Amino acid sequence: METIPKTMRALVQLEDGYSGKSEGPVISDAALYLAEAEIPVPTPEKGQVLIKLRIASVNPSDLHFIKGEYGQPRRKGAPVGFEGCGDVVAAGKGAERLIGKRVAFAVSLGGSGAWAEYALTDAVACIPLRSDVSDVNGSAQIVNPLTAMAMVDIAAKDGDAFVISAATSQLGKLIISLAKDMNLKVIALVRRADAVTPLKAMGATEVLVTTASGFSDQFSVASRALKPRVFLDAVSDQICETVFTLMPNNARWVSYGKLGTEAPRLTQMGQLIFMGKRIEGFWLTNWMRSTPPADQARVAGEVQARFADGRWNTDVSASLRLKEVIEGLADATKLTDGKVVIIP
Amino acid sequence: METIPKTMRALVQLEDGYSGKSEGPVISDAALYLAEAEIPVPTPEKGQVLIKLRIASVNPSDLHFIKGEYGQPRRKGAPVGFEGCGDVVAAGKGAERLIGKRVAFAVSLGGSGAWAEYALTDAVACIPLRSDVSDVNGSAQIVNPLTAMAMVDIAAKDGDAFVISAATSQLGKLIISLAKDMNLKVIALVRRADAVTPLKAMGATEVLVTTASGFSDQFSVASRALKPRVFLDAVSDQICETVFTLMPNNARWVSYGKLGTEAPRLTQMGQLIFMGKRIEGFWLTNWMRSTPPADQARVAGEVQARFADGRWNTDVSASLRLKEVIEGLADATKLTDGKVVIIP
Repeated sequence: METIPKTMRALVQLEDGYSGKSEGPVISDAALYLAEAEIPVPTPEKGQVLIKLRIASVNPSDLHFIKGEYGQPRRKGAPVGFEGCGDVVAAGKGAERLIGKRVAFAVSLGGSGAWAEYALTDAVACIPLRSDVSDVNGSAQIVNPLTAMAMVDIAAKDGDAFVISAATSQLGKLIISLAKDMNLKVIALVRRADAVTPLKAMGATEVLVTTASGFSDQFSVASRALKPRVFLDAVSDQICETVFTLMPNNARWVSYGKLGTEAPRLTQMGQLIFMGKRIEGFWLTNWMRSTPPADQARVAGEVQARFADGRWNTDVSASLRLKEVIEGLADATKLTDGKVVIIP
Repeated sequence: METIPKTMRALVQLEDGYSGKSEGPVISDAALYLAEAEIPVPTPEKGQVLIKLRIASVNPSDLHFIKGEYGQPRRKGAPVGFEGCGDVVAAGKGAERLIGKRVAFAVSLGGSGAWAEYALTDAVACIPLRSDVSDVNGSAQIVNPLTAMAMVDIAAKDGDAFVISAATSQLGKLIISLAKDMNLKVIALVRRADAVTPLKAMGATEVLVTTASGFSDQFSVASRALKPRVFLDAVSDQICETVFTLMPNNARWVSYGKLGTEAPRLTQMGQLIFMGKRIEGFWLTNWMRSTPPADQARVAGEVQARFADGRWNTDVSASLRLKEVIEGLADATKLTDGKVVIIP
């Protein structure tokens, strides 16, 4: 087994805590928030593993976190990065079974982030990878795919049709393909007209362009025809509020992201009262806290099977080395046709 | 038994359907929406009763409805008025047991409104009155008291403290007295400083003036100390949104009215995601549809006992005859220290 070095290269936070702002997961310059540093390789405690990174992936939640707008406080000097794929090279008590395994992992609270040569997390946040799943697919197997699975499950319990925003995102595409397999109808909202044909080909029942004139009329027609009860929303802006007001009785606006930077106005509070509508949120971390481990394992196995047989695939729009992230991350995350990955 | 006339005086709608506006329950001139008319006395069908009015009461929901902003469409030419007290003078099949009884009543869908010499409603929407409950208390026994009971029940299931807005309203006072009896702590929000002393005397744990400088800091301190999980809100404006953002994890903003005319901005969508907060509504009609009859009867009995023994009382701020309503309603409903009632 190879020797573990004393220090490693990592991208670390410049700030502590929360920013108090709500600007959304867009960064103008990574150097405002992150620095490259040579820091000690962390040591796994009981139940934890040390992972030598193969590939880390960049999620909107990473950008939220870096900017101090995420659901947990920043720690100055600590490596960032919620998700990746790598090899377990050391383990604390009770986690030894994972040593030598290639795993997909999410970094849990108390861990050390994935945008580094080595990451540290709980053994329960690791999924050993089948050999027929690529490193790239392994690096993006938890945050988006589990979120997709869990949210489609919520929607499926509340009817046979639902609405999604930001439908061209990786998560959006996962949801559409999953809904198709489950015979659920999806009204997919996109910003650009060139997304309509590919998403329809992928299985979306309706694809509507939110920036088009007549959008709200088009949505209204689709809503009356398909009667969606759940709106899985990554944008949470004023257009999303309009969408919600055009949905039928007992509709649920489930926000899981804030790509939009404006604070939406609630123009129809009366619909909450008289139509039984409600507004809530979804966070994978809360889902993992509240879902039995056996159910989570079943879902994780289903996710991996989908990547292994090609039903799901991670499109890469940009690949950055650790030393390129500070300079290249802002531009790379402006690309909209796939995922940004980070390699050591 | 007295003869039932062929026609009656009633206040009827000038418009059909919804206005599409959201101005709130304030009227500048009743003549914009209502006319006095001599119309046929309705005939009770199966399960319905005809009630000779003693007193009708004016609720914010009546003003919402008259303006076309309520949860059911207006019917041009139909009498308005959701609640009152009177004597059952005729009954359809299965409702004969109520003939001759003095009842509190709410007008259900398909009925004929209370702002008239005779009203028509379902027998199940009538509560026979004990002799020790006055006509005035009988006329305001359902809409506010049942709403208070049902909402406090919601709050009580989610902790030992909650927040209410518009705390000086009749409904607010009912809620405060009920919470006191149940050993629940109430943070009461009011607009005027002169409301603080009386509401504290009534049993509110904290009474905060929303128009005072430093209000949000004061609320923040109270919220951290008492950890309220439920906000029963009749106002639903931007200050209410601020209140919601200052509440702890898993807080629920339960809107049951829209006294405020502005559309509140959701400035902290992330709290829905990361803190498990949600925004919903309460409507007594939905509660009555979804609550078993035996439970409703128990709650109604408890309500009446409270009026009978003086724990609850309806303060009257203005009393109008039917023929005075068109001219007097706008001014009467501007008074904030009690209920407006209508007598034939």
